[in-house]
Amino acid sequence: MAIITMAHGSGGRATSELIDSIFAKYFNNEILSQMEDSSVVDGSAMLAMTTDSFVVKPLTYPGGNIGRLSVCGTVNDLLMRGSVPKYLTCGFILEEGLDTELLSEICKSMAETAKEANVKIVAGDTKVIEGSGGLIINTAGVGFINPEKDISSKNCKKGDKVIVSGYLGDHHATILSSRMTIDNNVESDNAPLNEMVLSLVNNNIKVHALRDITRGGLATVLKEMAISAKVNIELEDDKIPVNPMIKDFCGILGLDPLYMGNEGKLVAIVAEEDAEKALSIIKNSKYGENAVIAGEIVEDQGEKFGNLTVRTVIGGLRSLEVLQGEGLPRIC
Amino acid sequence: MAIITMAHGSGGRATSELIDSIFAKYFNNEILSQMEDSSVVDGSAMLAMTTDSFVVKPLTYPGGNIGRLSVCGTVNDLLMRGSVPKYLTCGFILEEGLDTELLSEICKSMAETAKEANVKIVAGDTKVIEGSGGLIINTAGVGFINPEKDISSKNCKKGDKVIVSGYLGDHHATILSSRMTIDNNVESDNAPLNEMVLSLVNNNIKVHALRDITRGGLATVLKEMAISAKVNIELEDDKIPVNPMIKDFCGILGLDPLYMGNEGKLVAIVAEEDAEKALSIIKNSKYGENAVIAGEIVEDQGEKFGNLTVRTVIGGLRSLEVLQGEGLPRIC
Repeated sequence: MAIITMAHGSGGRATSELIDSIFAKYFNNEILSQMEDSSVVDGSAMLAMTTDSFVVKPLTYPGGNIGRLSVCGTVNDLLMRGSVPKYLTCGFILEEGLDTELLSEICKSMAETAKEANVKIVAGDTKVIEGSGGLIINTAGVGFINPEKDISSKNCKKGDKVIVSGYLGDHHATILSSRMTIDNNVESDNAPLNEMVLSLVNNNIKVHALRDITRGGLATVLKEMAISAKVNIELEDDKIPVNPMIKDFCGILGLDPLYMGNEGKLVAIVAEEDAEKALSIIKNSKYGENAVIAGEIVEDQGEKFGNLTVRTVIGGLRSLEVLQGEGLPRIC
Repeated sequence: MAIITMAHGSGGRATSELIDSIFAKYFNNEILSQMEDSSVVDGSAMLAMTTDSFVVKPLTYPGGNIGRLSVCGTVNDLLMRGSVPKYLTCGFILEEGLDTELLSEICKSMAETAKEANVKIVAGDTKVIEGSGGLIINTAGVGFINPEKDISSKNCKKGDKVIVSGYLGDHHATILSSRMTIDNNVESDNAPLNEMVLSLVNNNIKVHALRDITRGGLATVLKEMAISAKVNIELEDDKIPVNPMIKDFCGILGLDPLYMGNEGKLVAIVAEEDAEKALSIIKNSKYGENAVIAGEIVEDQGEKFGNLTVRTVIGGLRSLEVLQGEGLPRIC
């Protein structure tokens, strides 16, 4: 690894290697080593903090744009620790030649999404670089957390159910369609999941872990959780939720929805006894209507852990790894 | 303003126009409208929050690199509200082809600077974009604030002294020298100002306002303060601190140090009765040895305000505006 390649941005194995060999090496501390979607820090209250940069191309696409995405991504990362998202900062990196009408439209969308997600944008910065009209947005976020609600990958236990909040791959397929100028009706799912997550938390559902399903897709997220919690996870092939239109799209292009990124979907690991209630809460919340229980934690900390498998309809087991190589770059 | 030009990143008038016409329009709220170097937000304690993206070219330069800069810039913005910097998030945007040895060196420097500034890096993100080995870093920061210490531009009053913490233009001249491959001994002043600011705060100095002197230079910063506080500010030409080497450099290139950016200097507006004590504290703190009282607030809220003038040695008055046009782009 002497130079950076696009694969280092995939969210898969190459990204992990980069993080381990450089970022974790120099920045290691007990907070950063939580390695979750956002970090919980000790204020006078407890705070959750996270950051995300958005480099998606194209800047607008069916169902959303980089502005909406930049709010949803960070808000959802805060929610994945059970925190109430409160404040966002926004860093704009504008390429020379960017159309200010387009920038306006994107900012308007950010403001609307921030309102929907009940967060305030409290600080900003603008830089301009050479280029050809592109735009990068960084958002960092702070959420207030109830320390009694410990939501973290390490809490996954044998018997827990794996709830997937809706169809996989919509955002990824939308960006790919735009990039390839394929004319279809696919739309991004970019959305803030406040109502879904806070309904679970406020109803005292035993949510052990939450992750939003972004770069790398469901398979990468669950594989990382299995390793972190030292458990094995099994999905049922016929339960994995994919919109039929996306299924066809993937079939033609040879893509696997399990490795495709979303921007408004989560996977919840929930105690077995609360799973049906949790599913009902998610299905009744905004953006959760297609949620399903798609699998379970099959084994506790044993000699062999960190496995993610899919049980096929005829009973076979397929083993899944984290995304390798680059997937589709610049989807978020 | 139909498309973005490099001037929109200058920190001067074009940047202000962009902020007013788009960002402030859509994101307006009572926190963002504080328009200071960082925003104070209401946690269980009070928090200061800020964000800054760093796009400096070259990535390393005499006296520092983009990593040290990205920590100093955000830490200093938090300090300018009198807050104790606590947590940073880091968003890395890597261009394909970036040398991982160089990335390592930069991250090592960030970690060392974070240690010096007593902040923890608590969350990170990595994206990769096409390009030619470049690097952009966003850092967002949270500081803990004592709400009894109200440090804000609006507090400037007639009679207050203007303390400049050291030589102007060092960072700007360093980047320009690197860009033009001029061989000299100029070094960037990029540094975290924790000791300087927290010594003032902890000694109960009546600090009315603080700003770090970055893009746009001292003139732009003071002009903005004069408008914000509805006062007039007068500098004494022969007190403006510039390293003789930088003065010569500027003379040759026709540059004005008053419009050149630093990354480890501040301007403090201090109550007249505390000015000498404040100067002594700054001079005795790390990075403050060349501090001077360079001017004062000459008029309170009257009919005519927002003026920044320089009194020359022979008694003339020169009027200064905010930076117009682009200055040197990508200095931070």
